[in-house]
Amino acid sequence: MPARDHADPLMLDRTAPDARLVDVQIAVVAGGVGGSRFVRGVRHAYPDARLTVIVNTADDIRLHGLHISPDLDTMMYSLGDAIDPERGWGRADETWRVGAELAAYGVEPTWFGLGDLDLATHLVRTQMLDAGYPLSAVTQALCTRWLTDSDHLQLLPMTDDRVETHVVIDAPSAPSGVRAVHFQEYWVKLHAEPEARQVLQVGIEKSRPAPGVIEAITEADLVLVAPSNPVVSVGPVLAVPGIRTAIIATKAPVVGFSGIISGAPVLGMAHRLLPAIGVDVDAAAVGLHYGSRAAGGILDGWVIDDTDAGLLPRLAQAGLTAVSTDLIMKDPAATSRFIQYGVKLATE
Amino acid sequence: MPARDHADPLMLDRTAPDARLVDVQIAVVAGGVGGSRFVRGVRHAYPDARLTVIVNTADDIRLHGLHISPDLDTMMYSLGDAIDPERGWGRADETWRVGAELAAYGVEPTWFGLGDLDLATHLVRTQMLDAGYPLSAVTQALCTRWLTDSDHLQLLPMTDDRVETHVVIDAPSAPSGVRAVHFQEYWVKLHAEPEARQVLQVGIEKSRPAPGVIEAITEADLVLVAPSNPVVSVGPVLAVPGIRTAIIATKAPVVGFSGIISGAPVLGMAHRLLPAIGVDVDAAAVGLHYGSRAAGGILDGWVIDDTDAGLLPRLAQAGLTAVSTDLIMKDPAATSRFIQYGVKLATE
Repeated sequence: MPARDHADPLMLDRTAPDARLVDVQIAVVAGGVGGSRFVRGVRHAYPDARLTVIVNTADDIRLHGLHISPDLDTMMYSLGDAIDPERGWGRADETWRVGAELAAYGVEPTWFGLGDLDLATHLVRTQMLDAGYPLSAVTQALCTRWLTDSDHLQLLPMTDDRVETHVVIDAPSAPSGVRAVHFQEYWVKLHAEPEARQVLQVGIEKSRPAPGVIEAITEADLVLVAPSNPVVSVGPVLAVPGIRTAIIATKAPVVGFSGIISGAPVLGMAHRLLPAIGVDVDAAAVGLHYGSRAAGGILDGWVIDDTDAGLLPRLAQAGLTAVSTDLIMKDPAATSRFIQYGVKLATE
Repeated sequence: MPARDHADPLMLDRTAPDARLVDVQIAVVAGGVGGSRFVRGVRHAYPDARLTVIVNTADDIRLHGLHISPDLDTMMYSLGDAIDPERGWGRADETWRVGAELAAYGVEPTWFGLGDLDLATHLVRTQMLDAGYPLSAVTQALCTRWLTDSDHLQLLPMTDDRVETHVVIDAPSAPSGVRAVHFQEYWVKLHAEPEARQVLQVGIEKSRPAPGVIEAITEADLVLVAPSNPVVSVGPVLAVPGIRTAIIATKAPVVGFSGIISGAPVLGMAHRLLPAIGVDVDAAAVGLHYGSRAAGGILDGWVIDDTDAGLLPRLAQAGLTAVSTDLIMKDPAATSRFIQYGVKLATE
């Protein structure tokens, strides 16, 4: 049994595989597609816990005058059972007529998938933002449609301030030899094909955690870091001044889950971005990038996939408590199992 | 043959029923549904003429952050063969998914028909306006999709300034006993059921004609007033300071067409609004409301329906040159015939 840094506030029946947290608070740091699958697993594992999901907003973009928050929307639709199950983002039963019309007018960009149902969300969000409401209040308003009180679940944007991830890529014809593109352009239009020389979170230095974020971390009985992209999903959340500090300081155990399995991302294209921040594309490197709390990092426990079990000695040697299990999020029940397994690691 | 106030600049073969205007300019004052049918008839009658349509914008409204110009859109879609032929407004093959989603979010108003294809037009318009382009430039940009140069046709908003028609209706619970509602609310939501006590064009006094409007009237060889609503379509155009004066001063003959047939509007609900401006709901009263140019009005000729031929003596007695014909706009060819008939009246 590993040394325990924390009292066990979780009232967890450690012998039962379907252990439930009752009347406890869980904070999750997450991005979009992978993050929302993870949160469904958390909800499945701990249906009575109060969940606060701190969602990356550095993917946000304004297109056609609409404020689009891809990760918040993915999370909201997913938890509201309205997500397209095939794509993992956007609305089920979606159509694309407005976007096609915009293209017919010759309006750029045309590479962003702007669904008709999704567009209504953007319209409401943009209207509320333009009326002066902060993104956190807008998110709460939108969520009244998708989440009920009995969900014990709230979504918080990491910040109400504008932060945008830009990716620096080669541009031989530019005087500087490089150019910065919005993350959405890099991801959706360029398919992450150009090598990412640098990843910038524009505005991050001056951003402030959205109301409730620090409290959610500080008052949590458990903090989970979803297997989301370490560079452009979890990275921006941790980079909002105050959030990393709050995670380091919280009394709750902090457990992270690797989105890198067998040297490749389960979802998305993290392998195209990790090199830009000097992190190898393997589950150990990402865990050590987050770091052990004992060594000034954020993690009490790090969960990797069984296929990466060979990395465990390296992690142990580096002082990061780690364990391996089956990390494939094939459904909420499966996700729930590995989450419980990881939580046991950090709380026993 | 009636007295002629004007030289005949139209090079019109007055004996041919399909007389065409060649290399001449025609200005049309029009609203939306009826106006666009009328303009299709003008184009059919004079395919080689250069048409400038001066379109009412007092119906414009901002909803959900979108600048909607119903009459400009109806005109544009209609002349671009994209109009829904049944409704007479909006796009053919339209769907209503975004609007339904907005309603699902609980966002008001829900009474305005916001089509998905139509919405793309509003998005482009709103973006361009927010970027600082005047409505006339936006309209020109949108029309590049719908009209080709060979159409010899341009749409001009009556003004680039914000003007809104508000209808004053009874409101027993209000301290004043009345309230003013936007025309769209009166028309679409209230179905023009409350009695219109007053019709106000908010902002009209300070509005200026859009670039090209005065020139189009001054340089025209023929000015036509469409059988659009005299109160809320033609009325606002004439009320933009400078436009009425330009029509009175133009050397071109000015011919108007009655939208009131047998004491009722062919389209729409003008009968609900004419009383508010003290005009009877009959073709003679509307003609005399516009007035003979000889008597300080705008018309050289007034065309009414055959079913109203009994009103001709009254019009003659009042000094307004008038004629009756079949005014039903059942197709562009039929419309074309009555337009040519009216033009002959004013140019012979």
